[in-house]
Amino acid sequence: MAASEVAPATRRSRRRGRGEGRNGAPGQNPHLETPFITRRIPPYDILDDDGLARIEAAADRILAEIGVEFRDDPETVGLFRGAGGQVREIGRDRWNIRFEPGLVRGLLKTAPARFTQHARNPARSVEIGGDATVLAPSYGSPFVMDLDRGRRYGTIADFENFVKLAQSSPWLHHSGGTICEPTDIAVNKRHLDMVYAHIRYSDRPFLGSITAPERAGDSIEMCRILFGADFVDRNCVIMGNFNTTSPLVLDGITTRGIRAYAGAGQGSIHLPFLLGGAVAPLTMAGAAAQNLAESMVSCALTQLVRPGAPAILASFLSSMSLRSGSPTFGTPEPALGSLVMGQLARRLNMPLRCAGSFCTSKLPDAQAMQQSMMSMMSAVQSGANYILHSAGFLDGLLSMSYEKFMLDADLCGAIHAYLAGVQVTEDTLGVEALAENGPGEHLFSSAHTLRHYKTAYWDSALDDNQPWETWDEQGGIDAATRANARWKAVLAAYDPPPIDIAVDEALQDFITSRKASMADAWY
Amino acid sequence: MAASEVAPATRRSRRRGRGEGRNGAPGQNPHLETPFITRRIPPYDILDDDGLARIEAAADRILAEIGVEFRDDPETVGLFRGAGGQVREIGRDRWNIRFEPGLVRGLLKTAPARFTQHARNPARSVEIGGDATVLAPSYGSPFVMDLDRGRRYGTIADFENFVKLAQSSPWLHHSGGTICEPTDIAVNKRHLDMVYAHIRYSDRPFLGSITAPERAGDSIEMCRILFGADFVDRNCVIMGNFNTTSPLVLDGITTRGIRAYAGAGQGSIHLPFLLGGAVAPLTMAGAAAQNLAESMVSCALTQLVRPGAPAILASFLSSMSLRSGSPTFGTPEPALGSLVMGQLARRLNMPLRCAGSFCTSKLPDAQAMQQSMMSMMSAVQSGANYILHSAGFLDGLLSMSYEKFMLDADLCGAIHAYLAGVQVTEDTLGVEALAENGPGEHLFSSAHTLRHYKTAYWDSALDDNQPWETWDEQGGIDAATRANARWKAVLAAYDPPPIDIAVDEALQDFITSRKASMADAWY
Repeated sequence: MAASEVAPATRRSRRRGRGEGRNGAPGQNPHLETPFITRRIPPYDILDDDGLARIEAAADRILAEIGVEFRDDPETVGLFRGAGGQVREIGRDRWNIRFEPGLVRGLLKTAPARFTQHARNPARSVEIGGDATVLAPSYGSPFVMDLDRGRRYGTIADFENFVKLAQSSPWLHHSGGTICEPTDIAVNKRHLDMVYAHIRYSDRPFLGSITAPERAGDSIEMCRILFGADFVDRNCVIMGNFNTTSPLVLDGITTRGIRAYAGAGQGSIHLPFLLGGAVAPLTMAGAAAQNLAESMVSCALTQLVRPGAPAILASFLSSMSLRSGSPTFGTPEPALGSLVMGQLARRLNMPLRCAGSFCTSKLPDAQAMQQSMMSMMSAVQSGANYILHSAGFLDGLLSMSYEKFMLDADLCGAIHAYLAGVQVTEDTLGVEALAENGPGEHLFSSAHTLRHYKTAYWDSALDDNQPWETWDEQGGIDAATRANARWKAVLAAYDPPPIDIAVDEALQDFITSRKASMADAWY
Repeated sequence: MAASEVAPATRRSRRRGRGEGRNGAPGQNPHLETPFITRRIPPYDILDDDGLARIEAAADRILAEIGVEFRDDPETVGLFRGAGGQVREIGRDRWNIRFEPGLVRGLLKTAPARFTQHARNPARSVEIGGDATVLAPSYGSPFVMDLDRGRRYGTIADFENFVKLAQSSPWLHHSGGTICEPTDIAVNKRHLDMVYAHIRYSDRPFLGSITAPERAGDSIEMCRILFGADFVDRNCVIMGNFNTTSPLVLDGITTRGIRAYAGAGQGSIHLPFLLGGAVAPLTMAGAAAQNLAESMVSCALTQLVRPGAPAILASFLSSMSLRSGSPTFGTPEPALGSLVMGQLARRLNMPLRCAGSFCTSKLPDAQAMQQSMMSMMSAVQSGANYILHSAGFLDGLLSMSYEKFMLDADLCGAIHAYLAGVQVTEDTLGVEALAENGPGEHLFSSAHTLRHYKTAYWDSALDDNQPWETWDEQGGIDAATRANARWKAVLAAYDPPPIDIAVDEALQDFITSRKASMADAWY
């Protein structure tokens, strides 16, 4: 990858969509910019070892006494049988497999505790695991929403817009996957346009398709065009985000997709979506046990296919208003559950994907950010290594919101400052700063203040921190309205990152060829 | 306190302002109601012992090498001189006092690690310290704000409204103090009306006046009328919230007030308001060291006046947009600082007041709750025992917002669920719940679900968790607008708690007499 470039490297500050100048304007925190976060505060441990051991023992019991049901994929069943799973055929193309305590955990010993997902721009490659944290946009909404046009089905134009908005934010590290469903493209072809958008409009790592094994294959093949087949065989350049069918089922579409990614040496995320009271116990200890059991089995398949293939334990805990039957997001119990999942992942020595900016609000309002913060801070504090749904999540994941995306992305910047922690040095203790002028005297012009003022505090690009009078004179604008203006300005200023013309043409040829090979399917 | 009652005990559900019935409606979490929270998750420790010891050593250096300036209160100076402080007169009624390392810490050994503040309704008494957490409304705003009338100066009618709203919420434990400034009453008399409002319209504990020693005295005297003088001498029934004049000054109004509360055996809170870069180093390690130094000295005065008097270490860390000069609230660095202050307070074995729902937003919008959550969760996770500013805080504390109050109070309910933690028992592990129907089958009607559904999840009374279509049909209302309707409904449904008529008359006589004894003063 070199040679001729489609677009110039170009205006750095415009690419970030700042709009403001370099002096006196808010939102400039260049010292915090990094391809991924290395956390400098410990995770928040809320359960003791005894509690954790009991959850692990319950997960073992689930796997040994209840087992996991597999469907429509005899090859996966054969792999688990070969590894010692007790297979029982329970119907046409349906098998229950039980695992003696410790068996699945043993299979995970070859899974890497930390790995690199490469970006086409090497400076954007991320590490996943250990003390690294990677933030990615929300994933999977059928609808998009903005303050001008309200809620509507997502299109490929929306999809591309969100890739561009993510690329323009210094506070997201990863382009994500199905940022919204491009419902204007046939179901069996849209993965090609989504993967192309990630490659073309972002230079960060991204997720590929998981909705069918052949779409997973197409996603990986496009990476071979982009990175070269040898590089792809030796490195993780794409990941698939796989859902178990809770409780305790892995269908054939999923296991075949997992095998496609793992077989190619690519990464995969193994996510039970646990809506308590519906598909999991509504007590968090039980949900955590089930989460651990399901995700471990799903991860273990990767190691049977190709030992050492990157796999990410994952958790999506949700709650329910059991009086009304509505799911709820951003509530305190799943936040606690996320903290517990962080502890369990560390004991397993595996990377964790966890939570995100979850909410049920239909607008980017007070409720949206209150719920999102409850959820997102738990992800950050749990030690999660890959946080999907970091930006844009609205209405219980049904809608991807342009304004919420901007609010969340700004918060992701604050999270960089949060995870930087408190440094204790003679300089930061600043006794001399106080001594300089003594009691009763301000520190505005002290040497210490002048030395630190550019980096001491997170400075939001979106929040209004002006005096009330100034804010009022400027029209008394709320946060959502500011976010509305901001995403338009960012898109207007967007420049695509450079790409090799030959690679771009090869990708487009591949897409054209694949699309021509099949009729549109809308299911 | 018994006999005839002004108001009947009356309609419990209306008093809570729920409006909804008992079945099928959100916001019913009676299992979480408690006079104060006993936390069941550990605090979040982000610094190691070495870092904490270095901050403590820096605080010792500040006190030994720079010292604290005292003004206009020779009696306080005499007390510290007697305790070993090195006093140096530096001007007319101004003294610098230095303390050798460990001296101040030693004076604090008689301060209680945990104490009870009694409410006039014994069922509402709170404990402060250890694993107890008490939530109180915001404090000190000159303005009030609501969506109908915008921003305006606060009045005694607003003050009474907020006391009633707090009393109506099951999620606040304490009536607070100067919820807003009642600017329609003379400065030298408004404390009488504020204390009366807390006594009459709430049956929870509250804070008294600190703006002048005689007003502190009036506040305590009113408690003697309410509780009886003997009870007040033996128990904490009122507290004063005192600010140091940072950096490193304690003025005579403050120290005389502290002496008034401590001398009467009443509680006091000792708060440096540290705006980094202005009155403290803008690096958090330094701000924490200064915070510890100032608050320890202020607390120590109570022990010199009356060993064993309740005193609360306190922290209010704020940041600044140093490019624009505006203070910022709800940013990540003060959130980290709050976590550190929690660790320092535990090492000192003293109760902590810390943070609250801080924000700079001028509206109850997305920014308001994002910033508030960053701040409030840090207070909760720091292990803070008394969280003032838990509800209503807007515009950097300049405005008390009716709508924000309702949003915050609802969040305080969620915090009850958060601090309840994750219980790990055979029942909550729920393996049998999964086994009941097995893989692929939902748990809606499992015995486990039926047993737990009423208490498993926090259920907000204010959030909209309905499907989008239902929400849209109902007008597409945002959270602030719902909060606007809610505070009006709560006030309309409010009933005052019962009070002894003779006590009420004695209080009113006292107020009348005190008001008649002095001319109005407006400064």
